[in-house]
Amino acid sequence: MADDSCARERSGGRAEDEMRPVTLTRGVMKNALGSCLAEFGDTRVLCSATIEETLPAWRKASRQGWVTAEYAMLPASTNTRTKREYKGRKGRSMEIERLIGRSLRTVVNLSALGEITVTVDCDVIQADGGTRTASVTGAWVALHDALSAWVDAGRIARLPLTGQVAAISMGMVEGRLLLDLDYPEDSHAEIDMNLVGTNDGRIVEVQGTGERTPFDRAHLDSLLDMGQSAIARLVQLQDEVTGFTA
Amino acid sequence: MADDSCARERSGGRAEDEMRPVTLTRGVMKNALGSCLAEFGDTRVLCSATIEETLPAWRKASRQGWVTAEYAMLPASTNTRTKREYKGRKGRSMEIERLIGRSLRTVVNLSALGEITVTVDCDVIQADGGTRTASVTGAWVALHDALSAWVDAGRIARLPLTGQVAAISMGMVEGRLLLDLDYPEDSHAEIDMNLVGTNDGRIVEVQGTGERTPFDRAHLDSLLDMGQSAIARLVQLQDEVTGFTA
Amino acid sequence: MADDSCARERSGGRAEDEMRPVTLTRGVMKNALGSCLAEFGDTRVLCSATIEETLPAWRKASRQGWVTAEYAMLPASTNTRTKREYKGRKGRSMEIERLIGRSLRTVVNLSALGEITVTVDCDVIQADGGTRTASVTGAWVALHDALSAWVDAGRIARLPLTGQVAAISMGMVEGRLLLDLDYPEDSHAEIDMNLVGTNDGRIVEVQGTGERTPFDRAHLDSLLDMGQSAIARLVQLQDEVTGFTA
Amino acid sequence: MADDSCARERSGGRAEDEMRPVTLTRGVMKNALGSCLAEFGDTRVLCSATIEETLPAWRKASRQGWVTAEYAMLPASTNTRTKREYKGRKGRSMEIERLIGRSLRTVVNLSALGEITVTVDCDVIQADGGTRTASVTGAWVALHDALSAWVDAGRIARLPLTGQVAAISMGMVEGRLLLDLDYPEDSHAEIDMNLVGTNDGRIVEVQGTGERTPFDRAHLDSLLDMGQSAIARLVQLQDEVTGFTA
Amino acid sequence: MADDSCARERSGGRAEDEMRPVTLTRGVMKNALGSCLAEFGDTRVLCSATIEETLPAWRKASRQGWVTAEYAMLPASTNTRTKREYKGRKGRSMEIERLIGRSLRTVVNLSALGEITVTVDCDVIQADGGTRTASVTGAWVALHDALSAWVDAGRIARLPLTGQVAAISMGMVEGRLLLDLDYPEDSHAEIDMNLVGTNDGRIVEVQGTGERTPFDRAHLDSLLDMGQSAIARLVQLQDEVTGFTA
Amino acid sequence: MADDSCARERSGGRAEDEMRPVTLTRGVMKNALGSCLAEFGDTRVLCSATIEETLPAWRKASRQGWVTAEYAMLPASTNTRTKREYKGRKGRSMEIERLIGRSLRTVVNLSALGEITVTVDCDVIQADGGTRTASVTGAWVALHDALSAWVDAGRIARLPLTGQVAAISMGMVEGRLLLDLDYPEDSHAEIDMNLVGTNDGRIVEVQGTGERTPFDRAHLDSLLDMGQSAIARLVQLQDEVTGFTA
Repeated sequence: MADDSCARERSGGRAEDEMRPVTLTRGVMKNALGSCLAEFGDTRVLCSATIEETLPAWRKASRQGWVTAEYAMLPASTNTRTKREYKGRKGRSMEIERLIGRSLRTVVNLSALGEITVTVDCDVIQADGGTRTASVTGAWVALHDALSAWVDAGRIARLPLTGQVAAISMGMVEGRLLLDLDYPEDSHAEIDMNLVGTNDGRIVEVQGTGERTPFDRAHLDSLLDMGQSAIARLVQLQDEVTGFTA
Repeated sequence: MADDSCARERSGGRAEDEMRPVTLTRGVMKNALGSCLAEFGDTRVLCSATIEETLPAWRKASRQGWVTAEYAMLPASTNTRTKREYKGRKGRSMEIERLIGRSLRTVVNLSALGEITVTVDCDVIQADGGTRTASVTGAWVALHDALSAWVDAGRIARLPLTGQVAAISMGMVEGRLLLDLDYPEDSHAEIDMNLVGTNDGRIVEVQGTGERTPFDRAHLDSLLDMGQSAIARLVQLQDEVTGFTA
Repeated sequence: MADDSCARERSGGRAEDEMRPVTLTRGVMKNALGSCLAEFGDTRVLCSATIEETLPAWRKASRQGWVTAEYAMLPASTNTRTKREYKGRKGRSMEIERLIGRSLRTVVNLSALGEITVTVDCDVIQADGGTRTASVTGAWVALHDALSAWVDAGRIARLPLTGQVAAISMGMVEGRLLLDLDYPEDSHAEIDMNLVGTNDGRIVEVQGTGERTPFDRAHLDSLLDMGQSAIARLVQLQDEVTGFTA
Repeated sequence: MADDSCARERSGGRAEDEMRPVTLTRGVMKNALGSCLAEFGDTRVLCSATIEETLPAWRKASRQGWVTAEYAMLPASTNTRTKREYKGRKGRSMEIERLIGRSLRTVVNLSALGEITVTVDCDVIQADGGTRTASVTGAWVALHDALSAWVDAGRIARLPLTGQVAAISMGMVEGRLLLDLDYPEDSHAEIDMNLVGTNDGRIVEVQGTGERTPFDRAHLDSLLDMGQSAIARLVQLQDEVTGFTA
Repeated sequence: MADDSCARERSGGRAEDEMRPVTLTRGVMKNALGSCLAEFGDTRVLCSATIEETLPAWRKASRQGWVTAEYAMLPASTNTRTKREYKGRKGRSMEIERLIGRSLRTVVNLSALGEITVTVDCDVIQADGGTRTASVTGAWVALHDALSAWVDAGRIARLPLTGQVAAISMGMVEGRLLLDLDYPEDSHAEIDMNLVGTNDGRIVEVQGTGERTPFDRAHLDSLLDMGQSAIARLVQLQDEVTGFTA
Repeated sequence: MADDSCARERSGGRAEDEMRPVTLTRGVMKNALGSCLAEFGDTRVLCSATIEETLPAWRKASRQGWVTAEYAMLPASTNTRTKREYKGRKGRSMEIERLIGRSLRTVVNLSALGEITVTVDCDVIQADGGTRTASVTGAWVALHDALSAWVDAGRIARLPLTGQVAAISMGMVEGRLLLDLDYPEDSHAEIDMNLVGTNDGRIVEVQGTGERTPFDRAHLDSLLDMGQSAIARLVQLQDEVTGFTA
């Protein structure tokens, strides 16, 4: 019994539906137009947004802007060294950077951007679970700041952002439904979910996987509830640091 | 008015929650241990399962078997020719083949496999929307047949399959919730979802994306209902052609 | 003696100078302008021709059209799984696709094509010897149909084809001169030849190799005779399905 | 006159033979055995040392340990975004990582290491000139800490370090000999030098290049003098943070 | 008339069935076990044979030796600079190196080699047509010398060569059948052939292509006659420099 | 004693500050605008300069010419076969070709070149130490000859060369300071230096590395003295073969 309870104690003593401490620190890279260090507990991701006055070849005809993302882990961000992807990209990294780019584009007015490409780089400095959700959450701040600077520089008239996006992970670990899994939890999860949502309570992306074993619809529904509440808190934090809705 | 109704007619006159005609044809490649041509309307995917008596390097210590998948499109499977991925894999393909492999592994008893790798190749001959869901559905049949042959050859005692997996797509197009989108529908979808489920009604994977714009939780819930019903019909079809539950 | 004769029986009981049953099925891929499933016995190759209104960079100055080919084997087309060429092309594949492209160009009036590139993809679904000769034979049909469609669409005035090309393999196995080798024969051949010819009895390409040991000129001459007769039958079959000479 | 003096003012008002403020912060990455954030003014490099109990294939026969380095720039570390080296390494990066590895090995007793590989990753967070010299200087600290942890864990008996290495850049800009060039200075330098030295005043590596134009031996000699003094100060700083010579 | 005859004059005034001056110079690279500079007129190929006491992975089970070849052109060997094949091999180069390797293996007793790999590198120093035939001819000399040295070193008892191979090109240019085409002839050829043959008059490989237009069997036959005579002279030259048949 | 002296005898009995016999042979490749076979003892490098009337993309805006270099070793140039760099460039090769290009550019007036790219290829035929210094020395001759030919062809008015560059290696072997190390010396060197200098006694590049162990400044200074004398002799030899200063 005692043992069981012990085993179920989350790190830092947090509740099942409690996120780790989240901080979003802006302006951490002097050469990037916008940047944000996103920390979800021990997970630390450096997000930076740069603007290039060019478009990908396939996009040129559209005369609309483009927003894209790249995601990488520093080799020493993980417990055992992660190899750089010089000899071929990993599916996981490409999947994550596609998710980040897709999520950001949902809240950008691409026709109002002008013929520019915004690249948001998410480099994981320290990985302790939830790197993709920290990436999305920090990427939005970096994107916001880069676009604000672009407005300030007189390059576009108004901020072409229609809303905020933030993301959180949820999962089932030893039968319990948990919010914002850290690495030890994530590596034992029976269900692994990620939710990207907006400041008006809508959903941008949901991904749920039964690791090892399939799961019930009821669990999916509960995890989504938990995730949507967390998103509400994250967008509020983004708003506090950027003053977006002010 | 008349125009509107016209625009809303689905190809083949099917209902919003109606799948296209689905056929699963077994034994289509004489050199593969198991194979299946999966057709969802005009979408045609050739699935084949081969067994190699070796394990990926990272898997060797486990002494457990492995199941993996590869996904590719023939260049002429699409309206405009798709390039072969010789100069670097595309994120989309890697994402899909990871999904197929993960889905299959959920219903395989890897410890009972022995030290073999089963590779299920899903080659899209003709693409008309839903290639990833046709791939998962056909891949399970090819996998079943390869493992049955392995049992028949006396290499393992019993079929190491704990269940069936099948998949279907759903989405919102012009405000309507639709099942099993074809390519024209898919390319205009506001919500794009994929659901992988099992023969006992559980969920293996859910992916939902708001293309262009975020979406409401209520829509997500309705689409999941629609998808779960479809999965029930697909696993029944798999069962008919393989006699798995017999 | 009896044993010897037995060993010499060809599969299907065919004569030394007899081809396997050949079928050319048109229109098998709805998204390709021209397509053909070429079957030489158990060897099955899916050939599709697509047209892009662009030219390779090195070709642009010429303002003449271009015809090229790609050749690949599905992983499960062979007895032991063949790896996809993601980490570098194989010499064999490049050699074959160069042969197909060269052969087709011999009978195309490139100046009459306009500034387009026709790519003929030859994807081997099932390999049982002679995949390159089935590819050339089926590729011509796919090319014919794509160019006919181009004419029908009013893009060019007349079919820019000056003739037909077809191909067949020959070889020496255990001292006997054989036509159209299947895989078991091919893998024991002392001489391995391929002949590409036209509907007017001329030669487009000849390749002959002494596998293991050199061979006599007299054998070369006999194999060429045998091959030229077979080409005559193949071009007649192409003509029957396409009505080219009508 | 006034203008001239103005132009010659170095950023921060520092003297010609004065380094920028240098800080070496240890323990910045919880998953690395040793880590150090090296800052030379606005240049910031994250150095981390990880140990793997394996050897490169070519090294196995030696049964001696190996120390190697990798160097990369975060895309947003530079004024205009730097591409990740996914499609081929850049010569500059390989040159720098070879220099770092070579420098570190000069002060490591490889036979005392045991059969391990130490990889020191140097990731440039912010680039303002002198990234390779900050890398070497910080890499030594990360290496020291990783090896100390290895000793503390009882894996080897004594710290297999025979000394310290640090590095500094020097150059000639508009005819003046300067120490520790920042990016604006570096991009106008007529001579560009890098010096790697030890705590006992010896030289590990010297590289000097006449950008645009050749230079005199006398300038080389003066720059070396300047560099050797700076190295003395850097090794003292390393010693202060690690207590190496204590 | 006069003009026509003029145009038909071959460089150096040689006859239609006359080779360019051929020289085979042995021992040109001190670090190679066997080497040969093969010159066919202005075409110069440096052939070197090296022996490694290892086998390709796929060959290990056989315990038989292996002979392979690599072919490359120095960038400045051609009129316009040829790019090095760092970003992907060219089909032409792979085709040629496969031909060279296959030709050499026909006259090597692989079971008598022991578990070694002989690599014959053919590097084109100057290209003026016929580089593949000069490569085969010189490669045999380099191979002979490397294997002789291996015998001399006591590593194998007897020279494991069962014969000689040499190669020559033939073609039809402006309707005339020519032997040993130089580059200007080759670039205008209507038929382009290569023949590899042995010292006992047999054929190892024949390749004939109708560039631009198909050709008649009679021309093929005449070109083969011409080629076989030339091979007889080439193997005699090889014999003179190596004393193989002595 | 006797033994010791023996060990210290340099090959060919040369003095510590004596170069190996150096020859520079011009015009060795008929297809290159300029070429030079540079021999430093048994080290032989084939240098060729070709001119293309195009500029690298990043250079186009400048409208100034560009000079670049490529360096490669023939596989059989070394004692044990060196692999071609098809699967990724080696850091060493890229480092050397960057050095050659940088050195040459120091003495070229790029604005006077016109919009051309000169590529100097340095292909090592035989490696016996000092391949990079032989490359630089021979590359200058090839560059000179290509630019002279460009002047002769009336493409530019005057030779856009402002001086000569040549290079030499120095090192410390068993405590002795030696000039122009051959391979056996180089592989035991404690210090390994390379110096690139001009005909007016200035320095273009200096690289010095303590292999295994750091070294004293005094040794560096002595080696530089030795190297500068050697450069004086090499530029004189270049001048003799090209008549540059005449």
